[in-house]
Amino acid sequence: MKSINVGIIGAGRIGKLHCDNLILIPGVNIAAITDPYMDICWAHSHQFNVVPDAGAIFSDPDIDAVFILSPSTLHAEQIIQAARAGKHIFCEKPIALDPLRIQEALDAVASAGVNLQIGFNRRFDPNFRYLKDVHEAGQIGDLYMVKIIARDPSPPPAEYVRDSGGIFLDMTIHDFDMVRYLSGSEVTEVYAAGAVLIDPAIGEAGDVDTAITTLTLENGALAVIDNSREAVYGYDQRIELFGSKGSITAENNTATRSTMMTAGGTLSERPLDFFLERYQDSFRLEVNEYFAAISGNGRITADGESGLVSILIGLAAKKSLADNRPVKVAEIRQEYFGK
Amino acid sequence: MKSINVGIIGAGRIGKLHCDNLILIPGVNIAAITDPYMDICWAHSHQFNVVPDAGAIFSDPDIDAVFILSPSTLHAEQIIQAARAGKHIFCEKPIALDPLRIQEALDAVASAGVNLQIGFNRRFDPNFRYLKDVHEAGQIGDLYMVKIIARDPSPPPAEYVRDSGGIFLDMTIHDFDMVRYLSGSEVTEVYAAGAVLIDPAIGEAGDVDTAITTLTLENGALAVIDNSREAVYGYDQRIELFGSKGSITAENNTATRSTMMTAGGTLSERPLDFFLERYQDSFRLEVNEYFAAISGNGRITADGESGLVSILIGLAAKKSLADNRPVKVAEIRQEYFGK
Amino acid sequence: MKSINVGIIGAGRIGKLHCDNLILIPGVNIAAITDPYMDICWAHSHQFNVVPDAGAIFSDPDIDAVFILSPSTLHAEQIIQAARAGKHIFCEKPIALDPLRIQEALDAVASAGVNLQIGFNRRFDPNFRYLKDVHEAGQIGDLYMVKIIARDPSPPPAEYVRDSGGIFLDMTIHDFDMVRYLSGSEVTEVYAAGAVLIDPAIGEAGDVDTAITTLTLENGALAVIDNSREAVYGYDQRIELFGSKGSITAENNTATRSTMMTAGGTLSERPLDFFLERYQDSFRLEVNEYFAAISGNGRITADGESGLVSILIGLAAKKSLADNRPVKVAEIRQEYFGK
Amino acid sequence: MKSINVGIIGAGRIGKLHCDNLILIPGVNIAAITDPYMDICWAHSHQFNVVPDAGAIFSDPDIDAVFILSPSTLHAEQIIQAARAGKHIFCEKPIALDPLRIQEALDAVASAGVNLQIGFNRRFDPNFRYLKDVHEAGQIGDLYMVKIIARDPSPPPAEYVRDSGGIFLDMTIHDFDMVRYLSGSEVTEVYAAGAVLIDPAIGEAGDVDTAITTLTLENGALAVIDNSREAVYGYDQRIELFGSKGSITAENNTATRSTMMTAGGTLSERPLDFFLERYQDSFRLEVNEYFAAISGNGRITADGESGLVSILIGLAAKKSLADNRPVKVAEIRQEYFGK
Repeated sequence: MKSINVGIIGAGRIGKLHCDNLILIPGVNIAAITDPYMDICWAHSHQFNVVPDAGAIFSDPDIDAVFILSPSTLHAEQIIQAARAGKHIFCEKPIALDPLRIQEALDAVASAGVNLQIGFNRRFDPNFRYLKDVHEAGQIGDLYMVKIIARDPSPPPAEYVRDSGGIFLDMTIHDFDMVRYLSGSEVTEVYAAGAVLIDPAIGEAGDVDTAITTLTLENGALAVIDNSREAVYGYDQRIELFGSKGSITAENNTATRSTMMTAGGTLSERPLDFFLERYQDSFRLEVNEYFAAISGNGRITADGESGLVSILIGLAAKKSLADNRPVKVAEIRQEYFGK
Repeated sequence: MKSINVGIIGAGRIGKLHCDNLILIPGVNIAAITDPYMDICWAHSHQFNVVPDAGAIFSDPDIDAVFILSPSTLHAEQIIQAARAGKHIFCEKPIALDPLRIQEALDAVASAGVNLQIGFNRRFDPNFRYLKDVHEAGQIGDLYMVKIIARDPSPPPAEYVRDSGGIFLDMTIHDFDMVRYLSGSEVTEVYAAGAVLIDPAIGEAGDVDTAITTLTLENGALAVIDNSREAVYGYDQRIELFGSKGSITAENNTATRSTMMTAGGTLSERPLDFFLERYQDSFRLEVNEYFAAISGNGRITADGESGLVSILIGLAAKKSLADNRPVKVAEIRQEYFGK
Repeated sequence: MKSINVGIIGAGRIGKLHCDNLILIPGVNIAAITDPYMDICWAHSHQFNVVPDAGAIFSDPDIDAVFILSPSTLHAEQIIQAARAGKHIFCEKPIALDPLRIQEALDAVASAGVNLQIGFNRRFDPNFRYLKDVHEAGQIGDLYMVKIIARDPSPPPAEYVRDSGGIFLDMTIHDFDMVRYLSGSEVTEVYAAGAVLIDPAIGEAGDVDTAITTLTLENGALAVIDNSREAVYGYDQRIELFGSKGSITAENNTATRSTMMTAGGTLSERPLDFFLERYQDSFRLEVNEYFAAISGNGRITADGESGLVSILIGLAAKKSLADNRPVKVAEIRQEYFGK
Repeated sequence: MKSINVGIIGAGRIGKLHCDNLILIPGVNIAAITDPYMDICWAHSHQFNVVPDAGAIFSDPDIDAVFILSPSTLHAEQIIQAARAGKHIFCEKPIALDPLRIQEALDAVASAGVNLQIGFNRRFDPNFRYLKDVHEAGQIGDLYMVKIIARDPSPPPAEYVRDSGGIFLDMTIHDFDMVRYLSGSEVTEVYAAGAVLIDPAIGEAGDVDTAITTLTLENGALAVIDNSREAVYGYDQRIELFGSKGSITAENNTATRSTMMTAGGTLSERPLDFFLERYQDSFRLEVNEYFAAISGNGRITADGESGLVSILIGLAAKKSLADNRPVKVAEIRQEYFGK
């Protein structure tokens, strides 16, 4: 069996994480890696072939697939170049904040006939995957509601917020994708309520730090997402699917399964704090689907379209908050694509 | 110590429940009881003094206090008559569906200088009371969100729905009151999303059976209530208060604290099914506050104003759903009271 | 329907508790009450008929049934007198610490043909009753093990320990009865390991404060009880039945069903602290069986024999600890009854 | 940094597991592997250097360390040979069933001055390790009890039982080691009760399938272990440490953290079924300590002595069951070593 040669673009925190997972996959070879601020010591310890820039990867005929793990402002351009070079692509979310730019990237992918997977890793989290399996097996019956709690342990710096596109495009985008994925239905309308309760600097940067977003789905069901930039008790990631036969909830993961009883009460461990720790399984599992698909086994589900649609929903949420009215996703699509 | 003589108006399911609790309170005497469809056998077994109608209770000078447990269309008129007769009043919710009619009743109560308590029993539920105590003690810090899950085990008949004023005035009204009570803040704006997913007859009756309602509070915090007319797994009554220092959740009550492990998984008991069973403690505890207040110890918190405001919020939710836009509670107040 | 007239012997903590429950039972009338240290204020507020001594109750022809709630050294004698007077009897455990004395009391009851119920209230606890129901319905299959955790919140004074008969006759006796009740099988052999880890004064009083007791049952299953005189986290009362089809566990009761998440972890409430609070339902439910039985409906299950056998098992445990060897219950029976 | 060259003796289920973990450790090189029934396909896919027998590994001067993962009857002899060849040793438990034979092996290790680690992987399980950390930090105060539940999902074949040394040497041995490890104290006396409730063939093979073992510890605390060969609900591995300041329990691990509410009750996932799955983290973590120790960083805690002592406790349990009396571990030591 011929190895799949992979080029890695971006070797920051998320890049290193993917490398750690890729080196364990039989038949996958990290052929080249690039990052303007490369951690040389780390690259050396892994004996990685460091190349000067992404161009060197795109032009290398031996490379079959690229992982675009660079800052998100570069994603669309690098997808387009990679597609033109005939490489299969894995790209972290978001493709871009501008739907037209995303569409350009998707068009390039379609023209080239390559595979593109977006890093919606939560689709591969065992807790959430189990919810989907149970739902698809009919065990909760017809879907009534999807409820998502997604709260970060602590707020990002206000400067980060300024360039992030705002909470809906930066943070809730994962939840929008989960609603589509778990419900198997499309979002038609969005109403977002938001508040600045945690850090006034986030408000000054034009964003909110607390939000409750209600979604109407094509199949008639409702969804609601609550987001907060600060849950001092840990990284809170829970989802409920509620339907005509029952309800299934994914609770938080903890480091151990211990329970301590003391004079002060019964104590169990707080949720895991950090997304890399909480979602470590999902990061490992998502690339399995990717390599299977580019080897001709199965197809990619977290595809380019999912990257586009989640941005359209996010823009609807943003407009809903700005105008204080429910906004149809079709309205956003019309605004950008005229149809 | 002189006994407090109580007159009971209405001896249906809720009337019998209150009687069962009242006979256990030292110093309280059920002096008269009336119901057009009196269960004579039950009244006889308790040796109750059955009188022909509410008028006989209002005109009895020995009666200090009345419990208005009649159909809700009679509440406002009976409050007015009781107030004029100088009786202290306990009245099940709602006072009326029309805010102007409620205001008439409250005016009569104010003129007479009697006490009025509305049957918002959930304020006295030990689980929810504990949440309020923890919050007031500052243990969860500044409030970010109030989240309420309130799902009935099975839908009411469509005929009931037709006369109930709709899900927001009939069912969510309890939750609106809980948001005010637990947050200690006023609701300023409401956005309601609704769907008919359970029983088409409910839709034909002009109502929804599934709803997600987002509330904006005066103190800046957000609240969200999800309601369903059908949770096949039991009567689901959960509340979360989430703030800057943490989050506290009231989970469901169950009949026992058992856990069974079998080949099929680990099973614990379903939530209690019936509101009389789930809230039996709260029905018992709410009347303590009432009798304390009319004896001059402490004051009534579930007062007439809480009965009016919850209806105003409910009407805002109703209009929000009808118009598909967020509606300010002040808009409803203006509509009815011109101020 | 004629009322059942009850005489109450002993109006301490447990006496008052039973009175509170009895006054709520239709058809039951507390006709007389006695206690050498009567709380007159309490008796007066309930308008109880206070009589000078137990003799006045036994000799009152209108009294149908007596509740013996006096110090346990008086139980056997009062049972004998009550039986001779033809009264039905409810008696708190233990009947006596000496099996021969217990047998005398049981013989008097048998001769008189009256009903005797021992206050093994835990048989009526809803959690434990549910375990028995599930087991009897065959849901856990053939029984492999009964496991009981019974830990007091804080140790008794050493003087109490001195007269109590020791941990096995005072505390574990409830657990011995539960093993018999839940398993539906007899205990054949006992091995007890004990230690003084909490209060040296308990050791000086000739007792242990920590014990693990292993029981062999007639049906082949094993049982193990762990006892401690000090669980600082509350009154710990858990039972597991483990069998060929699964395992069912009764967890502890708590005051509310709340869960708080803070930076320090996820906190739920400690178990209820006090046995009167933890077992309030069982105290209420046990007397229902009693009054049903003396009214000819059903029969008493927590009977005199259960009072005798639990003491025999306790004496076997005591000897096992003293001799550091497993002791057959038959050996104790032989020692006292020569058969 | 020079690599550590490892020779693997035994490539069955447990051998493959260790190989999977070893290939991920930087600086560790699997230099040779042997098994009389080698899975050639597997060895080839990993490009392992397959050698004909253990002798080829012992005599290879480039090999620094050996993993003895062969049938347990070979362990002692292979330890002796490996020690004489100057190799560091990791050996699965038990070293041997005969204490004298174990001592020979330990003597050889001592003479050679090599490191020996026994495969008591559960010491490295995150749940159990957390218990130890909490206890050592003083959070549960003085230790009162150690309680272990260790139940297999399904019984082994009776032939396996025949050669295993019986339940105490085969299964409970892990729990004996955990009691010592978690308590930090030595076991002085053992009482074992046993029964054949699951498979009569196990009884015919001279063993029991259900056991409750009580241990007395040198520090005065008590311990109790319950074992069953059949828990149809999964692999049940729970431990409680109970002390003067509280109690901490390690609950079972499950595949996901989901909870499903249906008409039949509230269902969470069953415990993981298989020891390789349940203890996968501990197998990975235990070798870290090993390689750290042989690299001069830290020392081995699951040492040869722990392998010997756990067998002595197991033999005491075996004799206790056979003689139906508590047996001191010193009695067993005297029997074998005359001191």
